Amino acid sequence: MADEGSFKVDPYSVEGAVDYKALADRFGIKLIDDKLKERIRKDAGELHFMIRRNIYFAQRDMDWLLDQYEKGNRFYLYTGIAPSGTMTIGHLMPFMMMQWLQERFGAEVLIQIPDEEKFLAKRDLKLSMEELHKLAYDDALNIAALGFDPKKTRIFLNTEYAGTLYKQAVRVAKHITFSIVKDAFGFGNDTNIGTLFYTSMQAVPAFLKSVEQKRNVPCLIPLGVDQDVHFRVARNAIEKLGYYKPAIIHSKFLPSLKGGAKMSSSDPDNTIYVNDDHAAVAKKVNRAITGQQSTAELQKKLGGDPERCSVCQYYRYIFEPDDKKLDKILDAERKGTMLAGEHKKALAETINRFLDSHRKKKEAIKDRLDEFMVRD
Amino acid sequence: MADEGSFKVDPYSVEGAVDYKALADRFGIKLIDDKLKERIRKDAGELHFMIRRNIYFAQRDMDWLLDQYEKGNRFYLYTGIAPSGTMTIGHLMPFMMMQWLQERFGAEVLIQIPDEEKFLAKRDLKLSMEELHKLAYDDALNIAALGFDPKKTRIFLNTEYAGTLYKQAVRVAKHITFSIVKDAFGFGNDTNIGTLFYTSMQAVPAFLKSVEQKRNVPCLIPLGVDQDVHFRVARNAIEKLGYYKPAIIHSKFLPSLKGGAKMSSSDPDNTIYVNDDHAAVAKKVNRAITGQQSTAELQKKLGGDPERCSVCQYYRYIFEPDDKKLDKILDAERKGTMLAGEHKKALAETINRFLDSHRKKKEAIKDRLDEFMVRD
Repeated sequence: MADEGSFKVDPYSVEGAVDYKALADRFGIKLIDDKLKERIRKDAGELHFMIRRNIYFAQRDMDWLLDQYEKGNRFYLYTGIAPSGTMTIGHLMPFMMMQWLQERFGAEVLIQIPDEEKFLAKRDLKLSMEELHKLAYDDALNIAALGFDPKKTRIFLNTEYAGTLYKQAVRVAKHITFSIVKDAFGFGNDTNIGTLFYTSMQAVPAFLKSVEQKRNVPCLIPLGVDQDVHFRVARNAIEKLGYYKPAIIHSKFLPSLKGGAKMSSSDPDNTIYVNDDHAAVAKKVNRAITGQQSTAELQKKLGGDPERCSVCQYYRYIFEPDDKKLDKILDAERKGTMLAGEHKKALAETINRFLDSHRKKKEAIKDRLDEFMVRD
Repeated sequence: MADEGSFKVDPYSVEGAVDYKALADRFGIKLIDDKLKERIRKDAGELHFMIRRNIYFAQRDMDWLLDQYEKGNRFYLYTGIAPSGTMTIGHLMPFMMMQWLQERFGAEVLIQIPDEEKFLAKRDLKLSMEELHKLAYDDALNIAALGFDPKKTRIFLNTEYAGTLYKQAVRVAKHITFSIVKDAFGFGNDTNIGTLFYTSMQAVPAFLKSVEQKRNVPCLIPLGVDQDVHFRVARNAIEKLGYYKPAIIHSKFLPSLKGGAKMSSSDPDNTIYVNDDHAAVAKKVNRAITGQQSTAELQKKLGGDPERCSVCQYYRYIFEPDDKKLDKILDAERKGTMLAGEHKKALAETINRFLDSHRKKKEAIKDRLDEFMVRD
């Protein structure tokens, strides 16, 4: 059995109870400290609650990026999502952060939807390239619906933008050996050559603007910390090509409703999908682990532990941006004034309101998706 | 020192004296026998001298391909060339064969110019992607000048057609592991991930028509036998995707002027490039190894050995399609009636006439190259 300190984080799986401070050491990334938060607040005019609450907890080269910004050298933003099913609310987090960054810094945005990644990486995936292509378009719509500025946003599927990406990926790939990806990703002799090559496709948007503009343009990538390894590898290669290494801010994982480190799209019963209906959300939230005592009586008497309560965590991570309101919720849990049933019902309603609104935005933007998409 | 039976043939190097019969056994390919030659003659209406003379000496699935053809299921043709410098006359051989096949079988032609291959595979290559791109266009012009029908011919650079190729390459790549390319190509831990992936890009045109037409279309690939390994790997993967495995005819290597197994573009002094001027050709041919005796007197008395004479081989491989005229040349060498100087002078003149004519055709077609090219 894994002890408390034993956990694993890579793009293919997250196991054990993640100690994010230890993870930052392991990955060689810096925690986002108060000084950096203050600087972001100053430059952005406000601070996103996910940074304030250490949900975006770590970074690479953020001070350099803000040096550049303050000198007038504006950065662009890049992140992505590999389709393999319907998006979860956890998947939305990097895009919510990115939308805020776009708004506050006036930044251009590149969004990669690598519709080949899971096809290659998951041996037992039942989805064809055609089905992944469809899912990729639903992902694009979910992302566009978050409020990106179509004039400053480019969304692309790898299979539709390979004419642009492949010739740059080749330049990256020349600097990455089998040894490097073997050590970084744990690949072996039985890994297919598409998966071996893939990381160079993911690297390209991190310097594509520099190629296009024929001058070095800084890039910032908000991502889930499990994706950091791609850029540990890519940053070296990108530097060898003479471009700026991208800066990165890393988020923690939205916890599982059942209390694990990461809500996983491969565990549908404990995961909220953006197309879940009201009943499905209520059912899933109702099964959530809280930090409460075993009976209502004990809870009223002793109170609960918000840190162990997945309902509280959902408010903290996504659904309650207002710190004061969040404190009230956590406090009610702590003091035993709100019982589990009520607590869950309120979260389910909050999530359903969010999803209703999200789906309305999707519907409204559906016919304008092409304003965001680029193809070869 | 390598003994007679020791030789090595792969896409990256050819070493030793190649025993083509042993090579066919090693690669698991069949020799083109008289029965097959007769069948090709019947279906084509004539027999190309390179097949008649066993320069195209081996094959995969040619009987199946002709079965299909005779049933009315027409095949298309595919081959390619990876740019790394000016084309040599040896490089023209598969395209000459392909042009004849197009003419005789009314076949469509796909020509891949993988302008990323050498960039990836040659660690010390001094050429940038931009320079390779230029060379690729000169290759395209050299090929188009051989007389292909623009209505039935598609030439593409990988970096300009990756939008079409990459999404199919991914499907191939899923079936090819590191173990497979390691064993097939001798790759190792220090091989870059672009080179590992590359073979799946080379595989795509062998089934691309089937993808486009949504039905299985037979494909024939004329190639230098060193390229067979790509398709040993690809044929398995292509079959797993549900497409016909491509048929192949394999050529021997145009021998080096100095007597080695293969004229190599990395040995410029013993290699004829399509842009060599008259003086350069005369100088190179003048240094050629012949099968003649050490003095004119001995040669007149004892005669020479056409098999060991690179001048004779140049006539046989490319420059004298007429068997009777070729016999005369070989006979003169054998009987000692033609001395080395005269022999070389005649070949140099023949090559220069060929190259003058080729360059005129290039010039004439220059402005029409786009009729052949496809891009995403």
